[in-house]
Amino acid sequence: MKEKNRRRKDLTWTNEEPVLVQRTRIFDILSQKTCPPGQTASHDFTILKAPDWVNVIPLTAEGKVVLIEQFRHGVSRVTLEIPGGVVDAGETPEDCALRELVEETGFRASGLAFLGRTLPNPAFLTNVCHTFLATGCVSDEAAREPDETESIRVLLENLERIPSLIADESIDHALVVVAFTHLSLSRPDLLRL
Amino acid sequence: MKEKNRRRKDLTWTNEEPVLVQRTRIFDILSQKTCPPGQTASHDFTILKAPDWVNVIPLTAEGKVVLIEQFRHGVSRVTLEIPGGVVDAGETPEDCALRELVEETGFRASGLAFLGRTLPNPAFLTNVCHTFLATGCVSDEAAREPDETESIRVLLENLERIPSLIADESIDHALVVVAFTHLSLSRPDLLRL
Repeated sequence: MKEKNRRRKDLTWTNEEPVLVQRTRIFDILSQKTCPPGQTASHDFTILKAPDWVNVIPLTAEGKVVLIEQFRHGVSRVTLEIPGGVVDAGETPEDCALRELVEETGFRASGLAFLGRTLPNPAFLTNVCHTFLATGCVSDEAAREPDETESIRVLLENLERIPSLIADESIDHALVVVAFTHLSLSRPDLLRL
Repeated sequence: MKEKNRRRKDLTWTNEEPVLVQRTRIFDILSQKTCPPGQTASHDFTILKAPDWVNVIPLTAEGKVVLIEQFRHGVSRVTLEIPGGVVDAGETPEDCALRELVEETGFRASGLAFLGRTLPNPAFLTNVCHTFLATGCVSDEAAREPDETESIRVLLENLERIPSLIADESIDHALVVVAFTHLSLSRPDLLRL
């Protein structure tokens, strides 16, 4: 362990205090001066400081997975995803998962299990994405309240179709693929990729 | 097919021309006014226009995978990854994969196969990440030339250890997890997640 820490220390850069360039709705853009190990000249990096995100794989009692189609502004088209969103200040990732599930799909879960954590992009994003499995999901359409900037269609899919939906790139959002990978590693009884 | 297009059209927003807010080394920050389907009030979104990226899983003839440890400025720590980088203007994703492989690791491949494409973050990134499998990799340390902003350590790992390295979050970069998922789906003879 000591050896591992030492060996990682020799790769570690020295950061100056980051400077706020701009605030946006989803992240703060920071400029960070940082110096490579063993060097004196510093470099500028752009860092996006973002709150943590949550992804949730919702399963119904019948073994269907609840997917959503929504328009995504980065790629300017509709993508096929699972529900998820930004963890609010003071909210736990678990509470966020249950809130996003019901807001985006109108489904309520009877159980929630943590599946894994991933870095959305450690090169320039500061945050973590937490993935959960929501079980026993039942529709309660009246509870649905998508954000005013979300137009979402809900669809049910057989869980065993997920590998082919990833392979043919129908599901191509990296964090959604990672969520199913964590499901496959944690619950191979439910899904094998 | 027509039905599918029609059903997706009703989720599609209408974009105005995006405005450049700032250029950074790795993306252009754009502000985009866009209007939800069937509505007249527009909303502002921040979009990061980035060139495509490439990830490559390098395998040696002995079945080892070539991994790298590098300091990542977003999370301000060392992460365990595969080689990859930004596709240069005029470069094909294949050429980029071979270039990044040798620059970051000093390994040269005798074969290259396309594994899949993923969206790094369709909510605000415009780009695609292409994943390749590089086979028959052999070290040529003299060829290694990491970027001046990269301090990288190369290590060889048994491919069969990858599932446990993902499960215990030693490998936690979303795009690296996706790369191994595409390997598992394309080449289950090599890896099953």
